[in-house]
Amino acid sequence: MKYIYGIDIGGTTVKIGLFNESGEMIEKWEIPTRKEDGGDHILQDISDSIEAKNSEKGIDKADVLGAGIGVPGPVTADGRVINCVNLGWGIFNVANSFSAISGIQNVKVGNDANVAALGEQWKGGGRGFNSIVMVTLGTGVGGGIVLDGKILPGSNGAAGEIGHMLINPEETRKCNCGKTGCLEQYASATGITRMSKEKLESDSRDTELKQYDHPITGKELFAAYKNNDQVACEIADVFSTYLGRGLANVAQVIDPEAFVIGGGVSKNGQVVIDVIQEKYEKNVMFALKNKEFRIAELGNDAGMFGACRMIIQ
Amino acid sequence: MKYIYGIDIGGTTVKIGLFNESGEMIEKWEIPTRKEDGGDHILQDISDSIEAKNSEKGIDKADVLGAGIGVPGPVTADGRVINCVNLGWGIFNVANSFSAISGIQNVKVGNDANVAALGEQWKGGGRGFNSIVMVTLGTGVGGGIVLDGKILPGSNGAAGEIGHMLINPEETRKCNCGKTGCLEQYASATGITRMSKEKLESDSRDTELKQYDHPITGKELFAAYKNNDQVACEIADVFSTYLGRGLANVAQVIDPEAFVIGGGVSKNGQVVIDVIQEKYEKNVMFALKNKEFRIAELGNDAGMFGACRMIIQ
Repeated sequence: MKYIYGIDIGGTTVKIGLFNESGEMIEKWEIPTRKEDGGDHILQDISDSIEAKNSEKGIDKADVLGAGIGVPGPVTADGRVINCVNLGWGIFNVANSFSAISGIQNVKVGNDANVAALGEQWKGGGRGFNSIVMVTLGTGVGGGIVLDGKILPGSNGAAGEIGHMLINPEETRKCNCGKTGCLEQYASATGITRMSKEKLESDSRDTELKQYDHPITGKELFAAYKNNDQVACEIADVFSTYLGRGLANVAQVIDPEAFVIGGGVSKNGQVVIDVIQEKYEKNVMFALKNKEFRIAELGNDAGMFGACRMIIQ
Repeated sequence: MKYIYGIDIGGTTVKIGLFNESGEMIEKWEIPTRKEDGGDHILQDISDSIEAKNSEKGIDKADVLGAGIGVPGPVTADGRVINCVNLGWGIFNVANSFSAISGIQNVKVGNDANVAALGEQWKGGGRGFNSIVMVTLGTGVGGGIVLDGKILPGSNGAAGEIGHMLINPEETRKCNCGKTGCLEQYASATGITRMSKEKLESDSRDTELKQYDHPITGKELFAAYKNNDQVACEIADVFSTYLGRGLANVAQVIDPEAFVIGGGVSKNGQVVIDVIQEKYEKNVMFALKNKEFRIAELGNDAGMFGACRMIIQ
């Protein structure tokens, strides 16, 4: 039996999955991400954890086919990280470094959103499609592109950064990226909460959304939307208009087979797909209509699966 | 000596180039595009023209390595054309058909804008870059994407259709594609002429642009722009704002190394690059700044070069 490690480095924890050569996950666990000292301990900690797992399972290092790693920052095709501020990392080749530290020869590294997209394309919502765009609607709006079964990293490791497409030139509020009017400002969980707060403060109409004493999230918004609550429908319309326009423009560029929608907001299910798809169809040219839209299926495991896939594809 | 035919099928003429195996163009000529009878004669006419050239030059068919063909419509990765209305073609596999008609085994087919992009990446303005976006500012706004030296066709053969990205949601005029607010409505030669006409009709200020008794094109516009003519600067600002925003959003999706700007409008030279690049830089996230912008160099030969490249890459 041969083995692969699929590793997803996040700002708080590192998720590690042990896979067999058929791509089945045998076990998964987490270790803390130690960001002190410029993130210098992270790769060593992962290597130590893998060594311990090998000992525990009686796995011979020679039977480890390789390790894939997803990193929360731009990564070039050859495994170079470019200023991964979340981990304190500057510019260095993570693939080469981890290989040297762990003794694992075959190491592949990708941006975490891209790696998660590969996982979903392989074993999740994008199964059966070769070319997908994955859109993660979480704190921000992440994107990952898989073309012909391979991650598109981009020349600076920044392909798929669709959350920072300009979508509203009239916006005056700043996005976290420093620009204004980014898709992320409306289509993220954070965007939904902000838009709901502003709407409730400025709109005197009665609405279901007023019953909550906590910030509105996608959950409350789409529940009220399904009840045809007018205020909720208007907020959902802003969300879906900007996201549908954004994905239409993405399709005009790369013409994927399918979009896979993930992240916390996607947990509200088919209604999210429905509102996005309606606006997508309105804004895309004839040859690009009727794309498939799917909900992501792997949740927080997508990164580990995608990292494994980089090794055995 | 081995030979390649690079063929660029247009709505009026078919351009045919004879190349040697080093990719040098030996000779080029044109034949009319016969669109009658649903375009049924086009491939036979090309095959006849190639046969005649082989005879004239004493080229043995066995020494023809292959033929590349650019077609003005969506083409999938396997050479299937999907409703090429310009030629009267429906849905069929052009690569297989031309191979059967001509006896040339190795036939590759691509969308004309994508094939021209490959030509520019290989031997034109995109030389030295592996991944480029070519933007053709002509009657419309065409786009072609080359990633790692290969055309990105898209799952429906419609990748790179950036002229039909939604760029102005407030627009009420219809684009040729049937949508409204497409990039093509402002960034094409046609768009410049229309915007200039409307501006001159509605704006009473004195301007150099009033001296012409023919429609304003990029030539007159950018000449006046260089003289700091205020009305011209305002029109150029609309042109460059929409195009800069559009290309910024393209970069957010695929992160190319460079943009190559072609078509009639690009003939006005560096000033066109300068105005686009200024707006690009304002609208793109940090990791995507400082992309290279180049003027296309191959003109109408780009398609033949790209078609040749499909065979010998």
